[in-house]
Amino acid sequence: MTSPESDGRTGVWLIGARGSVATTAITGAAALRDRLIPPTGCVTESPELMDPAMPGFDRLVFAGHDITDTPLPKRAEQLEAGGVLPRGLRELVHTDLTAADNRIRSGIGTADERHDQLEAAERLTQQLCSFRELYALSRVVVINVAATEAHPPSRREHADLEELENGLRHPDPAEGGPLPPSSLYAYAALRAGCPYADFTPSVGARLPALDQLAAEQRVPYAGSDGKTGETLVKSALLPMFSSRALHVRSWSGTNLLGGGDGRNLADPNNVTSKTTSKQRAIGESLGHPVDGDVHIDYVPALGEWKTAWDHISFEGFLGNGMSMQFTWQGCDSALAAPLVLDLARLLARAHERGHSGPLPQLGFFFKDPVASEEHRLVAQFEALRSFVERLKEG
Amino acid sequence: MTSPESDGRTGVWLIGARGSVATTAITGAAALRDRLIPPTGCVTESPELMDPAMPGFDRLVFAGHDITDTPLPKRAEQLEAGGVLPRGLRELVHTDLTAADNRIRSGIGTADERHDQLEAAERLTQQLCSFRELYALSRVVVINVAATEAHPPSRREHADLEELENGLRHPDPAEGGPLPPSSLYAYAALRAGCPYADFTPSVGARLPALDQLAAEQRVPYAGSDGKTGETLVKSALLPMFSSRALHVRSWSGTNLLGGGDGRNLADPNNVTSKTTSKQRAIGESLGHPVDGDVHIDYVPALGEWKTAWDHISFEGFLGNGMSMQFTWQGCDSALAAPLVLDLARLLARAHERGHSGPLPQLGFFFKDPVASEEHRLVAQFEALRSFVERLKEG
Amino acid sequence: MTSPESDGRTGVWLIGARGSVATTAITGAAALRDRLIPPTGCVTESPELMDPAMPGFDRLVFAGHDITDTPLPKRAEQLEAGGVLPRGLRELVHTDLTAADNRIRSGIGTADERHDQLEAAERLTQQLCSFRELYALSRVVVINVAATEAHPPSRREHADLEELENGLRHPDPAEGGPLPPSSLYAYAALRAGCPYADFTPSVGARLPALDQLAAEQRVPYAGSDGKTGETLVKSALLPMFSSRALHVRSWSGTNLLGGGDGRNLADPNNVTSKTTSKQRAIGESLGHPVDGDVHIDYVPALGEWKTAWDHISFEGFLGNGMSMQFTWQGCDSALAAPLVLDLARLLARAHERGHSGPLPQLGFFFKDPVASEEHRLVAQFEALRSFVERLKEG
Amino acid sequence: MTSPESDGRTGVWLIGARGSVATTAITGAAALRDRLIPPTGCVTESPELMDPAMPGFDRLVFAGHDITDTPLPKRAEQLEAGGVLPRGLRELVHTDLTAADNRIRSGIGTADERHDQLEAAERLTQQLCSFRELYALSRVVVINVAATEAHPPSRREHADLEELENGLRHPDPAEGGPLPPSSLYAYAALRAGCPYADFTPSVGARLPALDQLAAEQRVPYAGSDGKTGETLVKSALLPMFSSRALHVRSWSGTNLLGGGDGRNLADPNNVTSKTTSKQRAIGESLGHPVDGDVHIDYVPALGEWKTAWDHISFEGFLGNGMSMQFTWQGCDSALAAPLVLDLARLLARAHERGHSGPLPQLGFFFKDPVASEEHRLVAQFEALRSFVERLKEG
Ligand SMILES: NC(=O)c1ccc[n+]([C@@H]2O[C@H](COP(=O)([O-])OP(=O)(O)OC[C@H]3O[C@@H](n4cnc5c(N)ncnc54)[C@H](O)[C@@H]3O)[C@@H](O)[C@H]2O)c1
Ligand SMILES: NC(=O)c1ccc[n+]([C@@H]2O[C@H](COP(=O)([O-])OP(=O)(O)OC[C@H]3O[C@@H](n4cnc5c(N)ncnc54)[C@H](O)[C@@H]3O)[C@@H](O)[C@H]2O)c1
Ligand SMILES: NC(=O)c1ccc[n+]([C@@H]2O[C@H](COP(=O)([O-])OP(=O)(O)OC[C@H]3O[C@@H](n4cnc5c(N)ncnc54)[C@H](O)[C@@H]3O)[C@@H](O)[C@H]2O)c1
Ligand SMILES: NC(=O)c1ccc[n+]([C@@H]2O[C@H](COP(=O)([O-])OP(=O)(O)OC[C@H]3O[C@@H](n4cnc5c(N)ncnc54)[C@H](O)[C@@H]3O)[C@@H](O)[C@H]2O)c1
Ligand code: NA
Ligand code: NA
Repeated sequence: MTSPESDGRTGVWLIGARGSVATTAITGAAALRDRLIPPTGCVTESPELMDPAMPGFDRLVFAGHDITDTPLPKRAEQLEAGGVLPRGLRELVHTDLTAADNRIRSGIGTADERHDQLEAAERLTQQLCSFRELYALSRVVVINVAATEAHPPSRREHADLEELENGLRHPDPAEGGPLPPSSLYAYAALRAGCPYADFTPSVGARLPALDQLAAEQRVPYAGSDGKTGETLVKSALLPMFSSRALHVRSWSGTNLLGGGDGRNLADPNNVTSKTTSKQRAIGESLGHPVDGDVHIDYVPALGEWKTAWDHISFEGFLGNGMSMQFTWQGCDSALAAPLVLDLARLLARAHERGHSGPLPQLGFFFKDPVASEEHRLVAQFEALRSFVERLKEG
Repeated sequence: MTSPESDGRTGVWLIGARGSVATTAITGAAALRDRLIPPTGCVTESPELMDPAMPGFDRLVFAGHDITDTPLPKRAEQLEAGGVLPRGLRELVHTDLTAADNRIRSGIGTADERHDQLEAAERLTQQLCSFRELYALSRVVVINVAATEAHPPSRREHADLEELENGLRHPDPAEGGPLPPSSLYAYAALRAGCPYADFTPSVGARLPALDQLAAEQRVPYAGSDGKTGETLVKSALLPMFSSRALHVRSWSGTNLLGGGDGRNLADPNNVTSKTTSKQRAIGESLGHPVDGDVHIDYVPALGEWKTAWDHISFEGFLGNGMSMQFTWQGCDSALAAPLVLDLARLLARAHERGHSGPLPQLGFFFKDPVASEEHRLVAQFEALRSFVERLKEG
Repeated sequence: MTSPESDGRTGVWLIGARGSVATTAITGAAALRDRLIPPTGCVTESPELMDPAMPGFDRLVFAGHDITDTPLPKRAEQLEAGGVLPRGLRELVHTDLTAADNRIRSGIGTADERHDQLEAAERLTQQLCSFRELYALSRVVVINVAATEAHPPSRREHADLEELENGLRHPDPAEGGPLPPSSLYAYAALRAGCPYADFTPSVGARLPALDQLAAEQRVPYAGSDGKTGETLVKSALLPMFSSRALHVRSWSGTNLLGGGDGRNLADPNNVTSKTTSKQRAIGESLGHPVDGDVHIDYVPALGEWKTAWDHISFEGFLGNGMSMQFTWQGCDSALAAPLVLDLARLLARAHERGHSGPLPQLGFFFKDPVASEEHRLVAQFEALRSFVERLKEG
Repeated sequence: MTSPESDGRTGVWLIGARGSVATTAITGAAALRDRLIPPTGCVTESPELMDPAMPGFDRLVFAGHDITDTPLPKRAEQLEAGGVLPRGLRELVHTDLTAADNRIRSGIGTADERHDQLEAAERLTQQLCSFRELYALSRVVVINVAATEAHPPSRREHADLEELENGLRHPDPAEGGPLPPSSLYAYAALRAGCPYADFTPSVGARLPALDQLAAEQRVPYAGSDGKTGETLVKSALLPMFSSRALHVRSWSGTNLLGGGDGRNLADPNNVTSKTTSKQRAIGESLGHPVDGDVHIDYVPALGEWKTAWDHISFEGFLGNGMSMQFTWQGCDSALAAPLVLDLARLLARAHERGHSGPLPQLGFFFKDPVASEEHRLVAQFEALRSFVERLKEG
């Protein structure tokens, strides 16, 4: 029996709604609804995590913000050419893409930071509320899949909600508005009472002030940085070394990628935010620092496919030096998109069941999980499984 | 506080006591006792699994069976030349090696199968009992680290203890004694009331008749086939694919190894028993068959170091084909030896605490765990951790 | 100035004309003629090897033998689905595929061996001559791209042309006709005065009796076994080790492939012929035997794409053990097809210029080059370049 | 018959004489002389390149410059611990190490640049001449194996010998002496009439002014940057792609190394000079730019062993995207040392036979060969072979 409320539809509002991940998620959701594809990669469809009370793929309505004008059908065409979307699928869901594209509103960019952030936040909140009302949605989940921002300098206003709202009202004339775009989106979402997730490594909701706001608004939030490639493998392998008491001495990684995300990460500022979240997992998991760098190289020739090589050196019994290498060749957007759908469904359901504040139980999905130090994939999966069990109870 | 009983010493009786794994384990135990090396690779020394009531490295007395005459100090010399043992260590523990070597008795080989197995079993049992008495040991743990046998044909006598003992007394004139050497060792160990583990893939204790005997004798047993290289990595990676609902389409593996184990596994009969236990894990973990072969090649040039390459192809969202490869370069004996010490300590303690029959909680150590279908390393580790918790209680 | 004769068209008769390699070659030749694709992978189009007197892509007429009925347009469809042919190309050259398919005749299979081989050979020769006359072709080059045969037992008749023709006329009642299908095709081609190449590892023209025939008929021939994947890389890497006086100790290889060739090579008989020619190169190049096996695994999930992993261990100065590994991921048919076109053009031109007998100068194309021990790719390229220079002179 | 002159001994003066490469070369030369090791890795000992008139290992006298005080026997100890030198060898050649160490003089460092360069050059020249006279050497070959310098800014004085000598006499008060240390060493060597080679990527002799000096002095010189690891493999693989008309689209590389060279290359200034010479080969060989970066990471855990991973994406027939990866695990110093000995012998012999100026025929040894655009290893080997042939004639 599903609760009456869950009969309503759920809005999925994507920040960066015309990007690769968003376009793949929107296309995929329509294809899943019409049973054109199997739910491979969608963990909320697996027997262990399925909860019939979660919104079905036919109950999701997509909308969002972006700062580009390239319409979704055009992006889908590019993704088809790049081999992400199978031939022909795009035409079959053309109506869905057009409809979603019509629901995309103009977002706010880095250049807009110095504008009136309060006004901007109010506009964003308003847009979320209108969307919820217009479509009579049970709720709207907001997920940030926009291009990675550079990590902003720390600001006094980040530490406390009152300070923050003060700062939004009276911005420091020298430094401008207190929030980077990702956090402004998060602020607006929480203000609108929307469950929220940071799929990007950008700072987003990860500010004490916003944590307070989420608690106040009684909405759950999750993040950060979708765990899809090299780091996914790391979180599967690290526990092997630690549980076997093998001493990891170095872990080096090189990521080659083309596509929009690659171009963006080639900007050294942004790379730093990304490689930092990538290495945090190693340190936190092993409890001691290890040698080695992580590189992210933009290689246009590779298009939407990413190749990562990792080299691990470790010490075994009697000081024996050993090593392991792996190469991962995956399509980033196809790895990310089903997780975005999973997050939308899980956050909707968690909200319905009254959860609020950070959800460490969703750490399974993230490189840098909020409110959690657990990076071991299997342990994260078990935590997620119990969480879904509890959602199903009562 | 440790129980008075645990003040006594524990015997560790190794079948294949002059092999690489055994020699490395015996050398390493002495080095650990004298704090010449850190306990890297020894999981019972990690904070999460340590139980002060387990026998310390200064409380272990090594002995065993083998069919070769090459003495332990000589084997240690070869292992030093092969880079397994660090320079100089061997001399420091020379007395221990000589003493252990003097406690090694002549084992039984394949050629001896047609001899009187009852008489052989009685001799083996007798040797275990004498060892226990002579050294006033609290107990003797028997671990089979002998060369891998070919899997024997199934025999009626394997299914039932009474039938088996009948068959030992009155061997079928055409087919000879009912047990392969590994099972005869296991039979003798259980008869002598010794906790037992199969570190080899040989059939050993894995016969219904021997399971009955273990229950009757109230001794615990564990196995089979130490999980150290490619399969260890598999058991860390497979849950990644399954928990993420990624569809594994093929898993291919090539293992290159020199050393004694390599030479032995080059015998196609034996390889079969090994590659079978390697692939069982994939099937059982994924719940559907996957394409791909596993090869074990004997490459003398690689000596004691093993290189394994695995290639995995999998399908993600929207049918996208992706792949992962890894190369593992490890020293097999150095990976295996600390686990042998762990098993000795855990089995001793489990016996002390009254456990008997198969111990699925030790599945963490094995490719083909007894009484368990769980192959996910992290889950196995959790099971082991709870087991140790319980051992510590009361 | 091209000679008047070269104004005529050249026939390309493919044995196995409906296979992957053949279909890709025929499709590609039409696409090159219409400038729909660049000549990537076609060495006779590179500045260093171009000879304007070689037949252009608009002067080739394709025909051949096969034993399957699946028409070329259907095969092209399958190759498009498998990602070998780019979307849409197939439709653009549909007329060419249909026309070539109409020129494919029923070949002879292994099952036909015991039939009257003389009669069969005469039919094949007749078909080649009719093709040449009907289309007023300057000459017909025959290239064997049929499925790999098992290596046949050696026969007395193979050693001498007179013996062979005797044997064809009066087959041994117990053993049947003296030739495997590939050699019967080669016999027929040479008899018809056609330049001939073995792109397969099958025995084909590599019999002393057929060498005599080629000399007698004054036609050139080349082979064996197109060098496209792992072996291509080997022939580039081996000279590195030898010229640097590094001592290669082991070379191990695993080839994973789906597709028709993969299924066929999974037959252990055939694999032997293939892996033998793969390892010959190592032995001959290094002048000393090395450890290591070569595996060819059929992995349907990989489709037309092949993944090969090679591991090389070598010794450097002061006995230092080092290693190198490589992974090669390529589309076999796309690597082979342009070489088939190159061979057709080169053999046509060599025939025109009066060359006959084995052409070691074409060793660049083959794993197991006729009349040559040179396996170093760069040296083979230089030999080919001088050969083309000489073809262009006078 | 060897010429009377070649009966004399040859001096080998190493800049950076206490570094890893130098220590390995000096130790190895003594071991080769005493036939304690085979000449693996020494190309002048291979049948194809052997010239009996080249100085034998018993005819070499080592000396050099360095700026560290750690004596050679101590460095040898460290290299033994790091696994570069086999156990025990060091003691066997202890006398040689001590003797060579006594012949090492204090060099000039970067900090010394602003000192009187003319005076410094005169001191260096003087030291070379004294060495030659004191030991009655036929000649002294100078090879720079010192730590890599940052590439210096271009200076007017580099372009012309007269200008340079003027600048040395009257240094620009603002900019200081005109030469970086490596070029000052080269200047001194050429002034002393010594054949010279740059094994480092530092600028060394690669200045027009020094080229003039070499011509004037009638001494041969060679360089730059010993080709031992990733770049060696590149120079073997690149011709494969180009000769097969395969279109390389990207070539990415990551080099992990510990050891002194690794620490030094971690300095971003120096890395630039190294990665530049690494990528020059690709551009020059393919004739078109390719995507991809080269990283050099300092990973102390790897010690003297280097691991390099390269990823190459390329396009084949019909636009098919393919890829190749390789991993190279080698001991840099053991790869470099025998080449240093080869260069010493070849330069000595070339000088004896009257060669002078840049020797492009030695391009086989270098990443960035002087006076040559040829990077294909096999072609370089052939050039070297003909050169040795010519040295042997007459
Ligand atoms: N596997 C994965 O793909 C993966 C994994 C983890 C994290 N991520 C993160 O997801 C994000 C999206 O990745 P992608 O591949 O879709 O990138 P993309 O470049 O294809 O798309 C990003 C989209 O964000 C839009 N955008 C940029 N700034 C914006 C702003 N201020 N407001 C609104 N929209 C804005 C862009 O116009 C673009 O449409 C990135 O931050 C990436 O790091 C992706
Ligand atoms: N990482 C690992 O090393 C690892 C992992 C899993 C399993 N194993 C298994 O452990 C076993 C030992 O490996 P190893 O490398 O030490 O091999 P090894 O060849 O070095 O040693 C085997 C020893 O067993 C002895 N032996 C053979 N038959 C015997 C018999 N019937 N009775 C008594 N002794 C006998 C041999 O004489 C030899 O001393 C093998 O079965 C191997 O498959 C090892
Ligand atoms: N890179 C490469 O693809 C490559 C490299 C070297 C050698 N080869 C060889 O080229 C050959 C063709 O490879 P493919 O991938 O096209 O294989 P395929 O299986 O796709 O095609 C083989 C074709 O040969 C036909 N055939 C089988 N027996 C025949 C006979 N007796 N007479 C006439 N036709 C017959 C089959 O019907 C089929 O159409 C194989 O022998 C393969 O080993 C291929
Ligand atoms: N495979 C290889 O090892 C390889 C290949 C190509 C090039 N190289 C180059 O060879 C050089 C030596 O490598 P290494 O591994 O022996 O390094 P190393 O750091 O072990 O040794 C360098 C030595 O140079 C000395 N030195 C530094 N500055 C000097 C100066 N101004 N004058 C005199 N001596 C000075 C140092 O004291 C040290 O002893 C490096 O430039 C390296 O890039 C090495
Ligand atoms: Na965290
Ligand atoms: Na050059």
